[in-house]
Amino acid sequence: MIRTLLRTTKTGYVQLNQRSIRFTSTAPKKVLTVETMHPLVRNVEYAVRGALPIRAEALSQQLKKDPSKLNFERVVFCNIGNPQQLNQKPITFFRQVASLCENPELLKAENRELVSKLYPSDAIARAEVLLKNIGSIGAYSHSKGITHIRENVAKFIERRDGYAANPDHIFLTQGASEGVQKVIQLLTQDKTSGVMIPIPQYPLYSATLALVDAAPVPYYLNEKENWGLGIEDLKASVDKARKEGVDVRALVIINPGNPTGQCLSEENIREIIKFCHEERIILLADEVYQTNIYQPKRRPFHSFKKVLMSMGPEYTNQELFSFHSTSKGMIGECGRRGGYFECVNIDPEILEQVYKISSVSLCPNVHGQIMVDLMTNPPVEGDVSYPQYKAEVDSIYESLRRRASKLANSFNNLEGVTCNEAEGAMYLFPRIRLPKKAIEAAKEANMAADTFYALSMLDATGVCVIPGSGFGQEEGTYHFRSTFLPEEHLFDKFCTSLEEFHSSFLNKYRD
Amino acid sequence: MIRTLLRTTKTGYVQLNQRSIRFTSTAPKKVLTVETMHPLVRNVEYAVRGALPIRAEALSQQLKKDPSKLNFERVVFCNIGNPQQLNQKPITFFRQVASLCENPELLKAENRELVSKLYPSDAIARAEVLLKNIGSIGAYSHSKGITHIRENVAKFIERRDGYAANPDHIFLTQGASEGVQKVIQLLTQDKTSGVMIPIPQYPLYSATLALVDAAPVPYYLNEKENWGLGIEDLKASVDKARKEGVDVRALVIINPGNPTGQCLSEENIREIIKFCHEERIILLADEVYQTNIYQPKRRPFHSFKKVLMSMGPEYTNQELFSFHSTSKGMIGECGRRGGYFECVNIDPEILEQVYKISSVSLCPNVHGQIMVDLMTNPPVEGDVSYPQYKAEVDSIYESLRRRASKLANSFNNLEGVTCNEAEGAMYLFPRIRLPKKAIEAAKEANMAADTFYALSMLDATGVCVIPGSGFGQEEGTYHFRSTFLPEEHLFDKFCTSLEEFHSSFLNKYRD
Repeated sequence: MIRTLLRTTKTGYVQLNQRSIRFTSTAPKKVLTVETMHPLVRNVEYAVRGALPIRAEALSQQLKKDPSKLNFERVVFCNIGNPQQLNQKPITFFRQVASLCENPELLKAENRELVSKLYPSDAIARAEVLLKNIGSIGAYSHSKGITHIRENVAKFIERRDGYAANPDHIFLTQGASEGVQKVIQLLTQDKTSGVMIPIPQYPLYSATLALVDAAPVPYYLNEKENWGLGIEDLKASVDKARKEGVDVRALVIINPGNPTGQCLSEENIREIIKFCHEERIILLADEVYQTNIYQPKRRPFHSFKKVLMSMGPEYTNQELFSFHSTSKGMIGECGRRGGYFECVNIDPEILEQVYKISSVSLCPNVHGQIMVDLMTNPPVEGDVSYPQYKAEVDSIYESLRRRASKLANSFNNLEGVTCNEAEGAMYLFPRIRLPKKAIEAAKEANMAADTFYALSMLDATGVCVIPGSGFGQEEGTYHFRSTFLPEEHLFDKFCTSLEEFHSSFLNKYRD
Repeated sequence: MIRTLLRTTKTGYVQLNQRSIRFTSTAPKKVLTVETMHPLVRNVEYAVRGALPIRAEALSQQLKKDPSKLNFERVVFCNIGNPQQLNQKPITFFRQVASLCENPELLKAENRELVSKLYPSDAIARAEVLLKNIGSIGAYSHSKGITHIRENVAKFIERRDGYAANPDHIFLTQGASEGVQKVIQLLTQDKTSGVMIPIPQYPLYSATLALVDAAPVPYYLNEKENWGLGIEDLKASVDKARKEGVDVRALVIINPGNPTGQCLSEENIREIIKFCHEERIILLADEVYQTNIYQPKRRPFHSFKKVLMSMGPEYTNQELFSFHSTSKGMIGECGRRGGYFECVNIDPEILEQVYKISSVSLCPNVHGQIMVDLMTNPPVEGDVSYPQYKAEVDSIYESLRRRASKLANSFNNLEGVTCNEAEGAMYLFPRIRLPKKAIEAAKEANMAADTFYALSMLDATGVCVIPGSGFGQEEGTYHFRSTFLPEEHLFDKFCTSLEEFHSSFLNKYRD
């Protein structure tokens, strides 16, 4: 039989005279294979949940079965900003309200006496207001999100910025990610549509552009300037792309930065807006870390909406989408998938299109919507729950700030490592200088050198970080991203284990 | 100025010698307009949340402001299967468990005495098991869904079908819609990839195919045979598409049917599987209405998985994706966005790709996942909560069955209307014969005739149904889809108002 003469490849194809042919005589292949699947989906990469976390998951399972074979007691997931996975406590008031909405039986008159011993009066009152406006949380809501909650989001934006917001221009989403995916899909047209993304970037952006087959137009953040960005770099990047025939339509800014942690000054934001206005580029402002600000005097948070509005009527044509989430800040309710985006100066016909496309998924989940309500409308001074709410938020905030600073110090004490301090967000992105021998060993293992380093770290310490190549970095440099979310009582141990690993790695591969 | 000589179109373009040019001198247009947006998004249609429901929403607002101008007291949303919007009560046990997971403070020792007066012991025990396996519900879970819950889903499938299910082949999703969208995106390749969809169909399928730019390959359900489907029709449809160069890859079956309510016999399912196996077509089984079965003896539910497994080893290469949801059945927890799909006989490398693409959205919301756990693992005989659970489920079921039958009778009593009984699901899809004058009046109003009818119904009665053209129907026939979900104590009034509208509409347009 001819088949026996041919080399069968891993995927079940046989090589014959340079042409792949399919053999179906005895074991027909599947219809759906990596060869026949959608090439855009195949090409997507998503490092923060890629090879490293998959290996970490396997180690975690191994620890449960046979801990004796590993040199560590726990796997520490620093691959993603997932605070409650690392035991950050949820905000009590938020969970109280959410649980009452979930079980309205508790609000019935006959249960009131008991329930008032378990719940503060303002949590009960808030749940009643929400249920009055929502009806049952088990029903599909309006596809844009519940009107009452969008009104509360508008008031929040108004308080934050000092400028009005229109609830009809706000769309609630399942986390910021869903909003970003929808908006990018909508505003690109074909392969030639370009969206500017920072390098390093959060891989949601490159993944989404790959999925919709649009062109990423990279601009580099300057590591030496604490990951700041210069207008001349933006300009050079646009010019280059346009020369290559790319229709540059939008600019993504992540502020505070992810993975880089920088926080933009008001002046810098104004320059960026001017630049976009001149170049006719839509702004996508990813502002999910707007309350994760660790140097609030020197670098407070300014929203793009506020700065844009302050620039006067000349800028009323500057289109802006601004994204927010309930997953970050001091809330960390990632599992709930809550978020919103605000459309500023967007064509009314486009708002209708956003609504239409939202309706295909029916509605964002109502629990996420409730968390958006709570995030944008928390207890205020005078409320029964305010003291506890404030104490919880302050305690998480102070602890994050301490851990950010401690981890940056620890990285900066490592041989060949430099690390900018985090002005915001939840991550550090240290640069590591790797010895040639390590780079060669990585090559032999068929891996990027920073992946090799991160994998060695994981196997030695149980700490899962993400190599810089997952975010993009300047050619010839190596980084990794780590959250600073491990619990504070374990933090010194965490830093020590990284230090020990680093020096033994360097000793092993020293040139 | 030349501009004054030109006709400005609605969208801000001016017409000049048949060519559109853009004027930017004084009022520059937006970068993002319906002309520049993604054409695939622009082309999507989604009737169940389209023009009719938008008008219904407006009427609902008007009722609040000035009810005197309208002839009805309430807008009745029959456009979508959204039971809790129409006051269907949630299942008590499910909400109890969910609220305990939401507020784990309630499970602390110091609160136990009080909480045991509000919650049955099995709800408390279930919440403890879930939290032990989940950790905090505020954390991102595994992108495939929580392992413990996927294990419970696998056991549920095993109990249902009598054949093993692998938890690693199960993906939890945000409602069935998200699963369908992911799978269709993955299994198409380009414009020439075809997916067979029933006509009439649930518009999620046509919308998703439009978004990924793949080819819908319609096959017609036979209204005279109670919306059954014949293999010869499937074959003719595939052959025709293949002749036109379409690479037919998958067949969507909605069973029980939406909008048509038919429930397939085991024999028919076996024929369909044989057909797909011969033609090398992947099966997508939308089985979200699997417990909405109203003639259980004559037409019980058979899952495609079960029938496929029963056909023996010859069929181990037949690829199948099966979708389920927490939004339907007697649960009706639509707002939570919970669901799952099972991959049967799918290439392992494709499973990895599904995982990768799921990870870009991080995870399905955890509340939806918890509801999947409860749906697939409800109280059983002997549990404290079982009697109440059973009573609630039975009562919803019996009432749905009564309402389905009552509404079909009511439709069949209308002049020129015929309506098949619902064997399953939540909808009726009556055929209406419209007088020529009505068809002409619709043409004048620039509307499909069934849209004209449905809009007239909405304005006269406040009842919002969806015209058949939103689902597809045989050329020259007119239908509409209505849920039978209005509350039972209002149901006679609901039927009467439809009857009154219909006869006055016919009298107005009688030829």
